[in-house]
Order: sequence, then structure tokens, then C-alpha cells
Amino acid sequence: MTHLAIVGGSDAGISAALRARELDPSVDVTVVVADAYPNFSICGIPYYFTGEVAPWQSLAHRTSADLGATGMNLRLDTLATAIDIAGRRLEVRSASGQVDRVPYDELIVGTGALPAHAGIAGLDRLGPADGVHVIHSMGDTFALEEDLRAREPRSAIIVGAGYVGLEMAEAFVTRGMAVTQLQRGPEVLSTLDPELGALVHEELAGHGVDVVTGTTVTAIERSGTGLIVTGVRGGEPFTRTADLVLAVLGVRPSTELLERAGAALGAGGAVAVDDRMRTGIPHVWAAGDGIVTHHRLLGITYLPLGTTSHKQGRVAGENALGGDRAFRGSVGTQVVKVFDLVAARTGLRDRDAAAIGFRPLTTSSAADDHKRYYPGAHPIRFRITGDERDGRLLGAQLVGRRGTEVAKRVDTFATALHAGLSVDELSDLDLSYTPPLGSPWDAVQVAAQDWSRQFRSRTADASA
Amino acid sequence: MTHLAIVGGSDAGISAALRARELDPSVDVTVVVADAYPNFSICGIPYYFTGEVAPWQSLAHRTSADLGATGMNLRLDTLATAIDIAGRRLEVRSASGQVDRVPYDELIVGTGALPAHAGIAGLDRLGPADGVHVIHSMGDTFALEEDLRAREPRSAIIVGAGYVGLEMAEAFVTRGMAVTQLQRGPEVLSTLDPELGALVHEELAGHGVDVVTGTTVTAIERSGTGLIVTGVRGGEPFTRTADLVLAVLGVRPSTELLERAGAALGAGGAVAVDDRMRTGIPHVWAAGDGIVTHHRLLGITYLPLGTTSHKQGRVAGENALGGDRAFRGSVGTQVVKVFDLVAARTGLRDRDAAAIGFRPLTTSSAADDHKRYYPGAHPIRFRITGDERDGRLLGAQLVGRRGTEVAKRVDTFATALHAGLSVDELSDLDLSYTPPLGSPWDAVQVAAQDWSRQFRSRTADASA
Repeated sequence: MTHLAIVGGSDAGISAALRARELDPSVDVTVVVADAYPNFSICGIPYYFTGEVAPWQSLAHRTSADLGATGMNLRLDTLATAIDIAGRRLEVRSASGQVDRVPYDELIVGTGALPAHAGIAGLDRLGPADGVHVIHSMGDTFALEEDLRAREPRSAIIVGAGYVGLEMAEAFVTRGMAVTQLQRGPEVLSTLDPELGALVHEELAGHGVDVVTGTTVTAIERSGTGLIVTGVRGGEPFTRTADLVLAVLGVRPSTELLERAGAALGAGGAVAVDDRMRTGIPHVWAAGDGIVTHHRLLGITYLPLGTTSHKQGRVAGENALGGDRAFRGSVGTQVVKVFDLVAARTGLRDRDAAAIGFRPLTTSSAADDHKRYYPGAHPIRFRITGDERDGRLLGAQLVGRRGTEVAKRVDTFATALHAGLSVDELSDLDLSYTPPLGSPWDAVQVAAQDWSRQFRSRTADASA
Repeated sequence: MTHLAIVGGSDAGISAALRARELDPSVDVTVVVADAYPNFSICGIPYYFTGEVAPWQSLAHRTSADLGATGMNLRLDTLATAIDIAGRRLEVRSASGQVDRVPYDELIVGTGALPAHAGIAGLDRLGPADGVHVIHSMGDTFALEEDLRAREPRSAIIVGAGYVGLEMAEAFVTRGMAVTQLQRGPEVLSTLDPELGALVHEELAGHGVDVVTGTTVTAIERSGTGLIVTGVRGGEPFTRTADLVLAVLGVRPSTELLERAGAALGAGGAVAVDDRMRTGIPHVWAAGDGIVTHHRLLGITYLPLGTTSHKQGRVAGENALGGDRAFRGSVGTQVVKVFDLVAARTGLRDRDAAAIGFRPLTTSSAADDHKRYYPGAHPIRFRITGDERDGRLLGAQLVGRRGTEVAKRVDTFATALHAGLSVDELSDLDLSYTPPLGSPWDAVQVAAQDWSRQFRSRTADASA
């Protein structure tokens, strides 16, 4: 019998465990989980704070009982502290401090990531007891909920305007709080071009969020009356105060366990693995937010996403049992709902593409989600990026009202990127149409045709 | 200057004209249109009858003025009667009977299709004045509307339960009529497997439609009190009466003009063309519902769809000006909204695939459209067909509630089919995820993984 030990009870670890048990029900799988909340949907936490998800237990993708029923063993509240490579044993420490060793034939490490502090003074010292929060685990969730309940803060500053920051702005607004959202870059949701980020900005502002862009936060301090956030905006000192601060500044890979075992680090300081999820350490595999990301366009980068962690974990679980599956690569597909707007992206934007040697052309378009004569049609705004040399599709960004099927329209681009199609070939796709839900040329194709038109006129200019 | 003549003012003809004018604004384009309604959205007619679309003019994709502004010339209410191949002239006859000749350098024919009668006696004689309708043109639409207005029929029999038949059932129900829907096959929407068609049947029944399957209609007669539809059901004679009959039995290609010019016919009795839309007659191209369909899996077949007509027309418009674009092929993607349900399909079903030499395996699945903990999640029901030999994706069928993004989820399958992916590779796709709109493994991937699981267990059985 193979003994498979897995470190990490989130997306990567549980996906690996499920895949191993699915492929070989005889394999003995032990999952070491740092807290008591394996397989929780961290992406769902903002909806617990909006009140849409209750109780918190329903955030579990699967309950511990569900997981146990698959035949895996869970060791909860247990920290993996060291890997004995030669002896193939994982050293673990329980909450009570008891040290134990878990023997393994194969080990998969999915230790994930930790909240980034972005060099902001105070974030290392201040915590929930001070009204300063991060939101990365169920522990963070309980701490924030307790603070909201106990102190009833009336105002919040959210430092960061990425996916989680925007979702939490919605949650705080829903709870009646005055929200200030601070963003370093020129526009919110910096994974979109500012032209589309501006639509998300409008949506936030329309719901009362005070969005302040172009602001570099340097410090958070506690005062008698609340929390003081200071920084620089437009070359001038900047100060805001609020009852509560939430810092959502992205993540950094949690690599300590593998680093100490001798694993090499790669892009973004994450653990280097090959496309089979091999760390290079014998019998040790890794997956999830702690490792580098193989990207079909960018090569090796660091782009931690839950969807990717699931795939990497599944690959690691298969290969640890002797399989030879490759992680076929991310294309960086992401989507977020912000109030009544949905924003999505996949692939590269103009500047990402130019930076690695593509010759990008990016065009803007708008196309209705369905035939305008049928009630409820709304325009979807697109940015399409393709290569001027060969017409290859490089990326797409979409923003539309909720209900315009933006989340699954971006999937058409993601699938086309995966398959290496050109922008022009999007018009060859046999996409579905019925007037209440589409158009004979789907909005996706209308945007692609706009790109092709501009591409052609450039080519014509160049040859003139 | 090139003179391009186009016969047909629906999807294929107008797409060809638009493409030609887009690529070369110097080309002289004349579109000969049999009625006064160029570029009308025939697919939208049912929503005119539900009352959701008003006035009828809004069904135009573009107005005649819009079309004129692109620089094309429209000859409305004009019938193309003959092609003088040697002289490169198109003979036309106006509504007043005046015969004229339109000289051309290149000619594109998009004469479309005509309603099929399926051998039902009476359909050749009875018409709107008798309360017997088809619904294929704006003329049919006005005739039906006038009949509904004038006679206020309280009951209708719809013969046929395909896409238009189902949409018209909804329209008649919305107008307060008692609707009987007769279907020859064992289940409605025979382009889906009966297992999924049954869900659509339930939706119809739940809205009061009296659905009668397994019924072959043989005749429609007029009696003193209404219309009598007779046929055979389960070997027994079958009779129903109603105030109005709508026959929606699919279409047959309208080929007369090209046939008389010497064009060869192919699959389904449609005009044979190559993938460049060449008819074989010098300088004569064809596109739309009157021609055969190049299908990426089936080869050459007849599968008239508006989306395909648009693509074929665009190809013909480009090639008539000296281009060399191929129609890259249909995969048979279709979607329909029936009350609050959406049903979609792409590719082949088990029996279609088996009939042409694939070795299909088809599996059923259900997966939520988004994370269940977030409000409003609904299951999507899937049927996935792949080839047992190499795992290639052959087709997918989906049924879900409106709002579950079924219409654009089928597009992921359609894109994967276009690219020739395997079912297993669907799990490699980087599809979008946010809890209100998806899952870390999208529903599409959950269904694909169910297929792969069954595929694997069969392979294991076979090798045991």
C-alpha cells in the first residue's frame, strides 16, 4: 500500500487527496491541516460578510465527514514543521505541542500563501484586537466577524482594490458601513486596463464607496479614536481615519517548509516545480499558491488562483501515484462580481504582452449580450489583445452587468487561448444563439471582428 | 469597379453584402430581396408574439436605412427568376411584374429555405385564411398576428416541438390560449436526448401546454367549428381539434434558382458548395439555408441555422471579391429558451456519432451553476459524448434554469470541439470562477470529469 502524505487542507491539498483516492482507493492518504477548517472556500468569505452565506459552515466545499467518507485521513490543527527527506517522514506538531512523524512514500506540499504586507508599517504589529484585519483564513474570518459584532465599527478603510478588496467593499456597504477604498494604482482592479477598471470604480462609487486611487499607503497606526492610515497621494501626504482597517494586498507564497527541505525558489519567490509538480526533492511534490505557475503565454510566473490550485493539486495527486499528467498551464482567467457588475479577464493585456516580446494590438468594443429587441439587453465592454504579426489571440477583458453571461463568455476566450486560436478564428466558432441570450454573431465575435478590422486597416496602412 | 449581385435579404445575403462592402468600399453591391423586409431576425418572431418585442419593426437587425448607409443597393419586393450564366446577368421580376436584368461580375445566392410540410395532407391547400399557419417570414408573421387579432382563437395545435415550435407554445400560452403540442418523436426537442428533452417537456406541461408525443400527424382539415388534426398515435387513430393550427416542421432548402442554373444538389437536397461557397457555376457563389453544411464532425450534411448562414454569407462575400476564406465548419451548436428553462447542444449525440463510425460513450451528470452556498444556485443537467477509443470530445447537451449561463457554457464545448480537444482536456481549461457565478471546477468540467471517470472504469474493465 502506498502511503501518501499531504500538507495543506485547502484547494491544492484536498484536490490532490481526492484525485489519489479516486484513482487508487487502496492508497493511504493523510492530510495534515494547520487549522480545523479543511476544504473551505476562501473565495466565499466575502459573501459570509454580505450575509448571503450562512452559517459559516456552509462555506465548506465538503465537510470533514464528506472528506472522511472518501477514505482520506485528516489531521486537523496540525502544523507540518519539517521534512525528513532521507527517512521519508514528515514532522508535525499538534496544537498541544506534541511532535509526531508521519511516514510517507510520497509527499505533496500545498502550504499555500500568506497575506502580503506591501511594506506597510504597522501591519506586522497591529491585528484584530486593534481593528486591523486581513482575510485569508477562517481564523481571520471569525476575528473580523467578532470585531464587527463587538465594536460595531461604522467606518472602514480597505487598503487594496483587487478581487477580495472589492468584494469586501460590497460586504461592508451591505452592512451599512462607510467604506473608503485605497488603491495604489491609477484605477481599481489593476488586473484590467484602467479604461475598464473605471467602470468598476463607477459601480463602487454608485454604491457609496469612497474610492481613492493613486494612493500609496505607508503606515497604519492606532489612535485614541480609531485607526489612522497614512501615505502619499500625488506627491502629497495623505491621511484617513476609520474605525476598522482591512488590508487586502495580495499574497506571498508560503515556502518555509519546502525551502528548509532544500527546494529551489522561482518566480515570485515561490517554490519551483516542473509541469508534473515535481519539486526536485525525491518523492516530494508541491501544488497551489506556494509554487510557481506555468502559464501558457507567460511561461513560468507566479499567479496564485484557486482554480489553478485545484488543477495543480489534481496533477500532483495523480503523479504521486505514478501518473504522468502535466499541468497544462494557466491563462490567467479571473472574474469578479462587484455589486451588479461582472468583470473578467483572461490572457495578457497589451503591456504584459509587449513586455515579453509579443507585438500586441489592443482594441475596445461594446456589444450587447443579446438581441437588443428582446428585453433586458445590456452592452458588454471588451478589450481584445492580439498579436499584430500573426493575429494570434493574446487576451481579453470583459465588463458587463450581472446576467450578461460575462463569466462564461470569458471562458470562450480562455478556451481559444488554450487552443492557440487567432483572433480571427473566433469568428469561425459555432457559438450558440437565441435572441434572449445572444446574437447570431455572439458579442465575443463582434469584439473579435472589431479587432480584426483594426488589424486589417493597420496592415493596409503599413503596406501603403 | 466590381459589380456584386446578391439574391436574398436574410442572414446569408446581408452578411455577404456587409462583408463585401467592409472589405472593399468601392464594390457595387445590389441585394435582391423577395419581400420588403431585408435583414429581419426571423429567430425573433416568437418574441413578437409573446409581446416582448414591439413594434415588429424592431425585429430588424438593421433598418433599410442602416443597410443603405453601408453603400449597398436594395431591390425590395423583387424576385430573382433566372441566372444568365454566360451573360452574367440575373433576371429579376418586381412585384408589378416588370422583368429586369441585373448585370454582375460575381453573384451570391442566398435563397434560404421554405417550411417543410412533412407529407401532411392539407398543408398545401390550407393557409392563414383557414387558420392554418407557418412562421417563416415577416409575411407569415403579419398573417398570424392578423388572425389572432381578428378571430381571437382560444385554442391552438402546434404541430412540431422543435426550437420554433417550443417558442411559439410559450407565445400562445402567454396570450392566454390553450395549446396542444404534437410531436412525432418520443420526446420534445428531438435534437436533445429524450432524457433531457423530458425536462423541457415538464417545463411546457408546468405552464399548461398539453404535450402529446409519439404522434404522427397525417392530415389537417377544416370543419365548421374549427380545425381537425388527425394522425396516428401508438398505432391508434388520433384526432384533435382547435381554433388555429401552426405547423413548424422544419425547413427544406429553396434551390430552384440555382438548380435551374445547373447547380448540383447534395446532402438534404441542398445546393452543393465547397468550403469556399463555390457552386461550381462560374462566378456564382451560394450561402445560407439553401446550401449544404460543412460540419466539423459529420462532414457534409444539411443543418440550416442562422449562425451558420451568417458565417457562410461572410465567407461568400469575402471570396466573391477574390478572397480565399474557408467556412471552417459548423458543430451544430443550438440553444433555446423555453419559459424559464434553457436547453443547448453542440456536436454529436451518441447515435449520431455511432452512425458515422465513432465509438461513442455518453454520460449523464448534474452540476450546480455556481457554488451552492451562494444564493440562487441551480443544477445544470449534462449529457457528454466522447469517443471511447481516444477520449475525443464529440458532443455535449445541457439543460438548466434561465440564469445558469447554459447558453455560454455550451460555447466552451463548442470551442473545444472546434479545437479538437479530448473530454479530459476540458479539465485543463482555465475557466473563470467566482462563487456567485461558478465553481473552482466549472460545471462543464465536473461533467467532463464524470465522463472521464466512466471512461476510465470501462478501460479498466476491458483490460481486466
